Amino acid sequence: TSGYQVGVLDADIHGPCIPKMLGMRGEEVAVGPPGAFPAVGPYGVRVVSMDFLLQSDDTPVIWRGPIKMGVIRQFLSDFVWGPLDFLLIDLPPGTGDEPLSIMQLIPEMDGAIIVTTPSETSQIVVKKAIAFARQLKTPIVGVIENMSGFICPRCGFQVDIFKRGGGLTLAQEASVRFLGSIPIDPSICEASDGGASFILGNPPSPAAKAFREIVARVEEYVRLRSESVRSESDTGAEERPK
Amino acid sequence: TSGYQVGVLDADIHGPCIPKMLGMRGEEVAVGPPGAFPAVGPYGVRVVSMDFLLQSDDTPVIWRGPIKMGVIRQFLSDFVWGPLDFLLIDLPPGTGDEPLSIMQLIPEMDGAIIVTTPSETSQIVVKKAIAFARQLKTPIVGVIENMSGFICPRCGFQVDIFKRGGGLTLAQEASVRFLGSIPIDPSICEASDGGASFILGNPPSPAAKAFREIVARVEEYVRLRSESVRSESDTGAEERPK
Repeated sequence: TSGYQVGVLDADIHGPCIPKMLGMRGEEVAVGPPGAFPAVGPYGVRVVSMDFLLQSDDTPVIWRGPIKMGVIRQFLSDFVWGPLDFLLIDLPPGTGDEPLSIMQLIPEMDGAIIVTTPSETSQIVVKKAIAFARQLKTPIVGVIENMSGFICPRCGFQVDIFKRGGGLTLAQEASVRFLGSIPIDPSICEASDGGASFILGNPPSPAAKAFREIVARVEEYVRLRSESVRSESDTGAEERPK
Repeated sequence: TSGYQVGVLDADIHGPCIPKMLGMRGEEVAVGPPGAFPAVGPYGVRVVSMDFLLQSDDTPVIWRGPIKMGVIRQFLSDFVWGPLDFLLIDLPPGTGDEPLSIMQLIPEMDGAIIVTTPSETSQIVVKKAIAFARQLKTPIVGVIENMSGFICPRCGFQVDIFKRGGGLTLAQEASVRFLGSIPIDPSICEASDGGASFILGNPPSPAAKAFREIVARVEEYVRLRSESVRSESDTGAEERPK
Protein backbone atom coordinates (compact mmCIF):
# COMPACT_ATOMS: atom_id res chain seq x y z
CA THR A 1 0.00 0.00 0.00
CA SER A 2 2.97 2.31 0.53
CA GLY A 3 4.47 1.55 -2.87
CA TYR A 4 7.71 0.49 -1.20
CA GLN A 5 9.43 -2.82 -1.82
CA VAL A 6 9.84 -4.25 1.66
CA GLY A 7 11.72 -7.25 3.03
CA VAL A 8 11.43 -8.62 6.56
CA LEU A 9 14.20 -10.73 8.05
CA ASP A 10 12.99 -12.53 11.17
CA ALA A 11 16.31 -12.82 13.01
CA ASP A 12 14.76 -14.27 16.16
CA ILE A 13 16.15 -17.75 15.59
CA HIS A 14 14.73 -19.36 18.73
CA GLY A 15 11.30 -17.71 18.71
CA PRO A 16 10.38 -16.68 15.17
CA CYS A 17 7.01 -14.85 15.26
CA ILE A 18 6.86 -12.89 12.00
CA PRO A 19 5.20 -15.64 9.87
CA LYS A 20 2.42 -16.01 12.46
CA MET A 21 1.88 -12.24 12.58
CA LEU A 22 1.74 -12.01 8.78
CA GLY A 23 -0.51 -15.05 8.33
CA MET A 24 2.29 -16.96 6.58
CA ARG A 25 2.74 -20.06 8.73
CA GLY A 26 3.44 -23.25 6.81
CA GLU A 27 4.83 -21.40 3.81
CA GLU A 28 7.87 -22.85 2.19
CA VAL A 29 10.98 -21.30 0.82
CA ALA A 30 11.50 -21.80 -2.91
CA VAL A 31 15.01 -22.75 -3.96
CA GLY A 32 16.27 -22.05 -7.46
CA PRO A 33 19.62 -21.89 -9.24
CA PRO A 34 20.65 -18.45 -7.93
CA GLY A 35 19.73 -19.28 -4.31
CA ALA A 36 16.71 -19.46 -2.02
CA PHE A 37 13.81 -17.04 -2.39
CA PRO A 38 12.01 -15.26 0.45
CA ALA A 39 8.36 -16.22 0.87
CA VAL A 40 6.00 -13.52 -0.40
CA GLY A 41 3.39 -12.36 2.09
CA PRO A 42 0.62 -9.75 2.25
CA TYR A 43 1.22 -6.57 0.23
CA GLY A 44 4.14 -8.29 -1.49
CA VAL A 45 6.36 -8.25 1.61
CA ARG A 46 9.30 -10.67 1.18
CA VAL A 47 9.95 -12.67 4.35
CA VAL A 48 12.73 -14.95 5.55
CA SER A 49 12.29 -16.70 8.90
CA MET A 50 13.62 -19.73 10.72
CA ASP A 51 9.96 -20.71 11.03
CA PHE A 52 9.84 -21.65 7.32
CA LEU A 53 12.75 -24.04 7.80
CA LEU A 54 11.44 -25.97 10.82
CA GLN A 55 9.41 -29.12 10.37
CA SER A 56 6.89 -28.43 13.13
CA ASP A 57 6.08 -26.24 16.12
CA ASP A 58 7.73 -28.82 18.30
CA THR A 59 11.08 -28.31 16.67
CA PRO A 60 13.24 -26.25 18.99
CA VAL A 61 16.41 -24.69 17.62
CA ILE A 62 19.19 -25.85 19.91
CA TRP A 63 22.21 -23.99 18.60
CA ARG A 64 24.88 -21.99 20.32
CA GLY A 65 25.83 -18.49 19.21
CA PRO A 66 28.40 -19.10 16.45
CA ILE A 67 26.03 -21.41 14.54
CA LYS A 68 23.30 -18.79 14.79
CA MET A 69 25.63 -16.24 13.21
CA GLY A 70 26.20 -18.65 10.33
CA VAL A 71 22.45 -18.97 9.76
CA ILE A 72 21.91 -15.22 9.87
CA ARG A 73 24.75 -14.78 7.37
CA GLN A 74 23.01 -17.29 5.06
CA PHE A 75 19.69 -15.47 5.43
CA LEU A 76 21.41 -12.35 4.17
CA SER A 77 23.67 -13.80 1.50
CA ASP A 78 22.07 -17.00 0.17
CA PHE A 79 18.60 -15.53 -0.25
CA VAL A 80 17.69 -13.64 -3.38
CA TRP A 81 16.00 -10.63 -1.80
CA GLY A 82 15.74 -8.65 -5.05
CA PRO A 83 15.59 -4.84 -5.05
CA LEU A 84 14.28 -3.45 -1.75
CA ASP A 85 13.50 0.01 -0.42
CA PHE A 86 13.49 -1.27 3.17
CA LEU A 87 14.84 -4.38 4.85
CA LEU A 88 13.32 -4.63 8.33
CA ILE A 89 15.09 -7.01 10.71
CA ASP A 90 13.24 -8.27 13.77
CA LEU A 91 15.60 -9.11 16.63
CA PRO A 92 14.98 -10.80 19.99
CA PRO A 93 15.36 -8.58 23.08
CA GLY A 94 18.77 -8.16 24.69
CA THR A 95 22.26 -7.80 23.33
CA GLY A 96 23.01 -11.40 22.38
CA ASP A 97 24.29 -13.19 19.33
CA GLU A 98 21.51 -12.19 16.96
CA PRO A 99 21.92 -8.37 17.17
CA LEU A 100 25.71 -8.76 17.35
CA SER A 101 25.69 -10.85 14.16
CA ILE A 102 23.39 -8.43 12.34
CA MET A 103 25.45 -5.39 13.29
CA GLN A 104 28.70 -7.03 12.30
CA LEU A 105 27.31 -8.41 9.02
CA ILE A 106 25.58 -5.17 7.93
CA PRO A 107 27.90 -2.33 9.00
CA GLU A 108 26.20 0.07 6.55
CA MET A 109 22.79 -0.38 8.24
CA ASP A 110 20.72 2.81 8.43
CA GLY A 111 19.93 2.29 12.05
CA ALA A 112 18.46 0.39 14.97
CA ILE A 113 14.98 1.04 16.36
CA ILE A 114 14.81 0.41 20.11
CA VAL A 115 11.48 -0.70 21.62
CA THR A 116 10.82 -0.46 25.35
CA THR A 117 7.85 -0.71 27.70
CA PRO A 118 7.36 2.16 30.14
CA SER A 119 8.46 0.08 33.15
CA GLU A 120 11.77 0.95 34.81
CA THR A 121 12.80 -2.70 34.65
CA SER A 122 12.40 -2.74 30.87
CA GLN A 123 14.33 0.51 30.57
CA ILE A 124 17.37 -0.95 32.31
CA VAL A 125 17.57 -3.64 29.64
CA VAL A 126 16.97 -1.16 26.83
CA LYS A 127 19.68 1.23 28.08
CA LYS A 128 22.12 -1.60 27.52
CA ALA A 129 20.81 -2.07 23.98
CA ILE A 130 21.50 1.62 23.25
CA ALA A 131 25.03 1.34 24.65
CA PHE A 132 25.49 -1.86 22.63
CA ALA A 133 24.49 -0.17 19.35
CA ARG A 134 26.82 2.76 20.10
CA GLN A 135 29.73 0.49 20.88
CA LEU A 136 29.21 -1.30 17.56
CA LYS A 137 28.85 2.04 15.74
CA THR A 138 25.31 1.32 14.56
CA PRO A 139 23.24 4.52 14.26
CA ILE A 140 20.10 4.63 16.42
CA VAL A 141 16.89 5.68 14.68
CA GLY A 142 15.14 6.22 18.00
CA VAL A 143 13.12 4.79 20.88
CA ILE A 144 9.50 3.54 20.75
CA GLU A 145 7.45 3.11 23.93
CA ASN A 146 5.17 0.11 23.50
CA MET A 147 2.35 -0.89 25.92
CA SER A 148 2.02 2.75 26.92
CA GLY A 149 -1.07 3.15 29.09
CA PHE A 150 -4.51 1.64 28.65
CA ILE A 151 -7.96 3.19 28.36
CA CYS A 152 -10.96 1.05 29.42
CA PRO A 153 -13.11 0.64 26.32
CA ARG A 154 -16.29 0.72 28.45
CA CYS A 155 -15.82 3.57 30.92
CA GLY A 156 -12.87 5.47 29.42
CA PHE A 157 -10.85 5.21 32.65
CA GLN A 158 -7.11 5.36 32.05
CA VAL A 159 -5.04 2.64 33.71
CA ASP A 160 -1.31 2.78 33.11
CA ILE A 161 -0.79 -0.95 33.44
CA PHE A 162 2.93 -0.87 32.72
CA LYS A 163 3.23 2.86 33.51
CA ARG A 164 3.61 5.58 30.86
CA GLY A 165 6.22 8.07 29.74
CA GLY A 166 9.33 6.07 30.60
CA GLY A 167 10.32 5.76 26.94
CA LEU A 168 10.50 9.54 26.50
CA THR A 169 12.58 9.92 29.67
CA LEU A 170 14.92 7.19 28.49
CA ALA A 171 15.28 8.79 25.03
CA GLN A 172 16.07 12.17 26.58
CA GLU A 173 18.60 10.72 29.02
CA ALA A 174 20.33 8.80 26.25
CA SER A 175 20.13 11.72 23.77
CA VAL A 176 18.25 9.60 21.27
CA ARG A 177 15.21 10.58 19.16
CA PHE A 178 11.83 9.61 20.64
CA LEU A 179 9.69 8.02 17.92
CA GLY A 180 6.38 7.72 19.77
CA SER A 181 4.23 5.77 22.23
CA ILE A 182 1.87 2.94 21.28
CA PRO A 183 -1.00 2.50 23.74
CA ILE A 184 -2.21 -0.96 24.75
CA ASP A 185 -5.08 -2.09 22.53
CA PRO A 186 -6.52 -5.65 22.64
CA SER A 187 -7.06 -5.46 18.86
CA ILE A 188 -3.28 -5.46 18.34
CA CYS A 189 -2.98 -8.95 19.85
CA GLU A 190 -6.09 -10.07 17.91
CA ALA A 191 -4.67 -8.81 14.62
CA SER A 192 -1.19 -10.25 15.24
CA ASP A 193 -2.51 -13.69 16.13
CA GLY A 194 -4.81 -13.58 13.11
CA GLY A 195 -2.07 -12.59 10.68
CA ALA A 196 -3.87 -9.35 9.79
CA SER A 197 -2.68 -5.74 9.63
CA PHE A 198 -3.78 -3.91 12.77
CA ILE A 199 -3.26 -0.47 11.19
CA LEU A 200 -5.32 -1.20 8.08
CA GLY A 201 -8.01 -2.97 10.12
CA ASN A 202 -8.40 -0.26 12.78
CA PRO A 203 -7.48 3.03 11.07
CA PRO A 204 -9.20 5.45 13.50
CA SER A 205 -7.82 3.93 16.73
CA PRO A 206 -5.25 5.85 18.81
CA ALA A 207 -2.81 2.95 18.49
CA ALA A 208 -3.08 2.97 14.68
CA LYS A 209 -2.50 6.74 14.71
CA ALA A 210 0.59 6.18 16.87
CA PHE A 211 1.92 3.55 14.44
CA ARG A 212 1.40 5.90 11.46
CA GLU A 213 3.25 8.74 13.21
CA ILE A 214 6.14 6.43 14.04
CA VAL A 215 6.32 5.24 10.42
CA ALA A 216 6.43 8.86 9.24
CA ARG A 217 9.29 9.65 11.65
CA VAL A 218 11.27 6.61 10.49
CA GLU A 219 10.71 7.55 6.82
CA GLU A 220 11.93 11.07 7.57
CA TYR A 221 15.01 9.73 9.37
CA VAL A 222 15.90 7.51 6.42
CA ARG A 223 15.32 10.33 3.91
CA LEU A 224 17.56 12.75 5.83
CA ARG A 225 20.19 10.09 6.33
CA SER A 226 20.32 9.09 2.67
CA GLU A 227 20.61 12.77 1.71
CA SER A 228 23.49 13.29 4.15
CA VAL A 229 25.21 10.09 3.01
CA ARG A 230 24.84 11.25 -0.61
CA SER A 231 26.26 14.70 0.10
CA GLU A 232 29.11 13.15 2.11
CA SER A 233 29.98 10.85 -0.77
CA ASP A 234 29.78 13.80 -3.20
CA THR A 235 32.26 15.68 -1.04
CA GLY A 236 34.40 12.56 -0.84
CA ALA A 237 34.47 12.32 -4.62
CA GLU A 238 35.57 15.94 -4.95
CA GLU A 239 38.26 15.64 -2.32
CA ARG A 240 39.78 12.44 -3.58
CA PRO A 241 41.54 12.96 -6.94
CA LYS A 242 41.18 10.06 -9.35
CA THR B 1 8.55 -15.69 55.45
CA SER B 2 8.23 -19.27 54.18
CA GLY B 3 11.07 -20.56 56.34
CA TYR B 4 12.85 -21.83 53.22
CA GLN B 5 16.42 -21.03 52.31
CA VAL B 6 16.14 -19.63 48.80
CA GLY B 7 18.70 -18.73 46.16
CA VAL B 8 17.98 -16.89 42.91
CA LEU B 9 20.32 -17.18 39.95
CA ASP B 10 19.61 -14.48 37.38
CA ALA B 11 20.77 -16.30 34.25
CA ASP B 12 19.60 -13.58 31.89
CA ILE B 13 23.10 -12.41 31.06
CA HIS B 14 22.12 -9.67 28.59
CA GLY B 15 19.11 -8.28 30.46
CA PRO B 16 19.46 -9.02 34.19
CA CYS B 17 16.30 -7.78 35.97
CA ILE B 18 16.23 -9.64 39.28
CA PRO B 19 18.27 -7.09 41.31
CA LYS B 20 15.92 -4.29 40.19
CA MET B 21 12.86 -6.35 41.10
CA LEU B 22 14.29 -7.20 44.53
CA GLY B 23 15.48 -3.66 45.29
CA MET B 24 19.13 -4.77 45.19
CA ARG B 25 20.64 -2.63 42.45
CA GLY B 26 24.17 -1.42 43.15
CA GLU B 27 24.90 -4.28 45.54
CA GLU B 28 28.28 -5.84 45.32
CA VAL B 29 29.42 -9.40 45.47
CA ALA B 30 31.72 -10.22 48.39
CA VAL B 31 34.74 -12.34 47.56
CA GLY B 32 36.45 -14.47 50.21
CA PRO B 33 38.90 -17.36 50.29
CA PRO B 34 36.37 -20.10 49.42
CA GLY B 35 34.86 -18.13 46.51
CA ALA B 36 32.40 -15.34 45.81
CA PHE B 37 29.27 -14.90 47.91
CA PRO B 38 25.77 -14.19 46.60
CA ALA B 39 24.33 -10.84 47.67
CA VAL B 40 21.70 -11.18 50.39
CA GLY B 41 18.37 -9.55 49.60
CA PRO B 42 14.93 -9.24 51.19
CA TYR B 43 13.85 -12.19 53.37
CA GLY B 44 17.41 -13.53 53.23
CA VAL B 45 17.19 -14.51 49.55
CA ARG B 46 20.68 -15.12 48.12
CA VAL B 47 21.10 -13.60 44.67
CA VAL B 48 23.69 -13.86 41.91
CA SER B 49 23.24 -11.68 38.81
CA MET B 50 25.34 -10.26 36.01
CA ASP B 51 23.95 -6.91 37.14
CA PHE B 52 26.21 -6.97 40.22
CA LEU B 53 29.28 -7.40 38.03
CA LEU B 54 28.64 -4.57 35.56
CA GLN B 55 30.03 -1.12 36.17
CA SER B 56 26.94 0.81 35.03
CA ASP B 57 23.62 0.58 33.24
CA ASP B 58 25.41 1.55 30.07
CA THR B 59 27.56 -1.56 30.12
CA PRO B 60 26.20 -4.01 27.57
CA VAL B 61 27.38 -7.59 27.70
CA ILE B 62 28.69 -8.38 24.23
CA TRP B 63 29.49 -12.05 24.42
CA ARG B 64 28.73 -14.94 22.16
CA GLY B 65 27.17 -18.16 23.46
CA PRO B 66 30.19 -20.19 24.59
CA ILE B 67 31.45 -17.36 26.83
CA LYS B 68 28.00 -17.06 28.36
CA MET B 69 28.08 -20.75 29.23
CA GLY B 70 31.41 -20.17 31.00
CA VAL B 71 29.90 -17.37 33.08
CA ILE B 72 26.86 -19.43 34.03
CA ARG B 73 29.15 -22.27 35.04
CA GLN B 74 31.06 -19.85 37.30
CA PHE B 75 27.82 -18.57 38.81
CA LEU B 76 27.03 -22.14 39.81
CA SER B 77 30.46 -23.38 40.84
CA ASP B 78 32.51 -20.39 42.04
CA PHE B 79 29.80 -18.92 44.25
CA VAL B 80 29.32 -20.17 47.78
CA TRP B 81 25.56 -20.62 47.77
CA GLY B 82 25.42 -22.43 51.13
CA PRO B 83 22.58 -24.81 52.00
CA LEU B 84 19.42 -24.09 49.97
CA ASP B 85 15.93 -25.54 49.88
CA PHE B 86 15.27 -23.94 46.50
CA LEU B 87 17.48 -22.50 43.78
CA LEU B 88 15.32 -20.52 41.35
CA ILE B 89 16.93 -19.75 38.01
CA ASP B 90 15.53 -16.93 35.89
CA LEU B 91 16.11 -17.48 32.18
CA PRO B 92 15.52 -15.23 29.17
CA PRO B 93 12.76 -16.32 26.76
CA GLY B 94 13.57 -18.71 23.94
CA THR B 95 15.76 -21.77 23.66
CA GLY B 96 19.17 -20.13 23.41
CA ASP B 97 22.51 -20.52 25.14
CA GLU B 98 21.34 -19.67 28.64
CA PRO B 99 18.72 -22.43 29.06
CA LEU B 100 20.93 -24.87 27.15
CA SER B 101 23.83 -24.15 29.52
CA ILE B 102 21.67 -24.47 32.64
CA MET B 103 20.13 -27.76 31.52
CA GLN B 104 23.49 -29.22 30.61
CA LEU B 105 25.20 -28.00 33.79
CA ILE B 106 22.41 -29.12 36.19
CA PRO B 107 21.13 -32.44 34.82
CA GLU B 108 19.57 -33.31 38.20
CA MET B 109 17.34 -30.20 38.13
CA ASP B 110 13.85 -30.76 39.56
CA GLY B 111 12.21 -29.08 36.61
CA ALA B 112 11.52 -26.17 34.33
CA ILE B 113 8.57 -23.80 34.78
CA ILE B 114 7.28 -22.48 31.47
CA VAL B 115 5.66 -19.03 31.37
CA THR B 116 3.47 -17.93 28.45
CA THR B 117 1.03 -15.16 27.68
CA PRO B 118 -2.39 -16.19 26.33
CA SER B 119 -1.62 -14.98 22.79
CA GLU B 120 -1.21 -17.59 20.07
CA THR B 121 2.04 -15.96 19.00
CA SER B 122 3.53 -16.43 22.46
CA GLN B 123 2.34 -20.03 22.56
CA ILE B 124 4.25 -20.90 19.40
CA VAL B 125 7.48 -19.84 21.10
CA VAL B 126 6.60 -21.62 24.31
CA LYS B 127 5.76 -24.88 22.51
CA LYS B 128 9.36 -24.90 21.33
CA ALA B 129 10.56 -24.39 24.91
CA ILE B 130 8.59 -27.46 26.02
CA ALA B 131 10.05 -29.54 23.17
CA PHE B 132 13.49 -28.17 24.08
CA ALA B 133 13.20 -29.25 27.73
CA ARG B 134 12.00 -32.71 26.67
CA GLN B 135 14.85 -33.15 24.22
CA LEU B 136 17.33 -32.27 26.98
CA LYS B 137 15.52 -34.61 29.41
CA THR B 138 14.67 -31.81 31.86
CA PRO B 139 11.39 -32.48 33.69
CA ILE B 140 8.69 -29.84 33.22
CA VAL B 141 6.99 -28.58 36.37
CA GLY B 142 4.20 -26.97 34.36
CA VAL B 143 2.90 -23.99 32.44
CA ILE B 144 1.90 -20.58 33.89
CA GLU B 145 -0.28 -18.17 31.93
CA ASN B 146 0.87 -14.62 32.69
CA MET B 147 -0.99 -11.43 31.62
CA SER B 148 -4.24 -13.39 31.65
CA GLY B 149 -7.14 -10.97 31.20
CA PHE B 150 -7.68 -7.55 32.79
CA ILE B 151 -10.51 -6.15 34.88
CA CYS B 152 -11.03 -2.37 34.81
CA PRO B 153 -10.51 -1.17 38.39
CA ARG B 154 -13.24 1.49 37.93
CA CYS B 155 -16.12 -0.22 36.17
CA GLY B 156 -15.27 -3.91 36.58
CA PHE B 157 -15.40 -4.53 32.81
CA GLN B 158 -13.24 -7.45 31.73
CA VAL B 159 -10.91 -6.80 28.81
CA ASP B 160 -8.78 -9.71 27.70
CA ILE B 161 -5.94 -7.55 26.43
CA PHE B 162 -3.70 -10.44 25.41
CA LYS B 163 -6.58 -12.96 25.37
CA ARG B 164 -7.17 -15.58 28.06
CA GLY B 165 -7.06 -19.35 28.44
CA GLY B 166 -4.34 -20.09 25.90
CA GLY B 167 -2.00 -21.36 28.60
CA LEU B 168 -4.43 -24.08 29.69
CA THR B 169 -5.00 -25.17 26.07
CA LEU B 170 -1.25 -25.29 25.51
CA ALA B 171 -0.68 -27.34 28.69
CA GLN B 172 -3.40 -29.82 27.70
CA GLU B 173 -2.07 -30.17 24.15
CA ALA B 174 1.46 -30.75 25.40
CA SER B 175 0.34 -33.05 28.26
CA VAL B 176 1.97 -30.79 30.83
CA ARG B 177 0.57 -29.68 34.23
CA PHE B 178 -1.19 -26.28 34.21
CA LEU B 179 0.01 -24.27 37.21
CA GLY B 180 -2.35 -21.29 36.99
CA SER B 181 -3.17 -17.93 35.39
CA ILE B 182 -1.96 -14.57 36.67
CA PRO B 183 -4.27 -11.70 35.69
CA ILE B 184 -2.85 -8.34 34.62
CA ASP B 185 -2.58 -5.98 37.60
CA PRO B 186 -0.83 -2.58 37.39
CA SER B 187 0.42 -3.09 40.96
CA ILE B 188 2.67 -5.93 39.76
CA CYS B 189 4.67 -3.52 37.58
CA GLU B 190 4.69 -0.93 40.41
CA ALA B 191 5.97 -3.47 42.92
CA SER B 192 8.60 -4.92 40.55
CA ASP B 193 9.98 -1.51 39.63
CA GLY B 194 10.01 -0.55 43.32
CA GLY B 195 11.83 -3.69 44.43
CA ALA B 196 8.92 -4.71 46.67
CA SER B 197 7.02 -7.98 47.04
CA PHE B 198 3.73 -7.74 45.16
CA ILE B 199 2.22 -10.71 47.01
CA LEU B 200 3.02 -9.40 50.48
CA GLY B 201 1.95 -5.84 49.53
CA ASN B 202 -1.38 -6.81 47.95
CA PRO B 203 -2.50 -10.00 49.73
CA PRO B 204 -6.24 -9.86 48.86
CA SER B 205 -5.83 -9.17 45.12
CA PRO B 206 -6.77 -11.87 42.57
CA ALA B 207 -3.23 -11.78 41.17
CA ALA B 208 -1.70 -12.39 44.63
CA LYS B 209 -4.13 -15.27 45.13
CA ALA B 210 -3.03 -16.70 41.76
CA PHE B 211 0.63 -16.43 42.75
CA ARG B 212 -0.01 -18.22 46.05
CA GLU B 213 -1.86 -21.06 44.31
CA ILE B 214 0.99 -21.46 41.83
CA VAL B 215 3.54 -21.56 44.67
CA ALA B 216 1.50 -24.27 46.40
CA ARG B 217 1.40 -26.35 43.21
CA VAL B 218 5.15 -26.02 42.72
CA GLU B 219 5.79 -27.00 46.35
CA GLU B 220 3.58 -30.04 45.89
CA TYR B 221 5.39 -30.99 42.67
CA VAL B 222 8.77 -30.80 44.39
CA ARG B 223 7.53 -32.77 47.42
CA LEU B 224 6.12 -35.59 45.26
CA ARG B 225 9.21 -35.63 43.11
CA SER B 226 11.61 -35.87 46.04
CA GLU B 227 9.51 -38.70 47.48
CA SER B 228 9.58 -40.60 44.20
CA VAL B 229 13.31 -39.98 43.77
CA ARG B 230 13.87 -41.28 47.32
CA SER B 231 11.78 -44.43 46.73
CA GLU B 232 13.51 -45.03 43.39
CA SER B 233 16.93 -44.83 45.02
CA ASP B 234 15.71 -47.18 47.78
CA THR B 235 14.62 -49.67 45.13
CA GLY B 236 17.89 -49.16 43.34
CA ALA B 237 19.80 -49.99 46.51
CA GLU B 238 17.83 -53.18 46.96
CA GLU B 239 18.20 -54.32 43.39
CA ARG B 240 21.88 -53.68 43.04
CA PRO B 241 23.90 -56.10 45.18
CA LYS B 242 26.95 -54.55 46.79
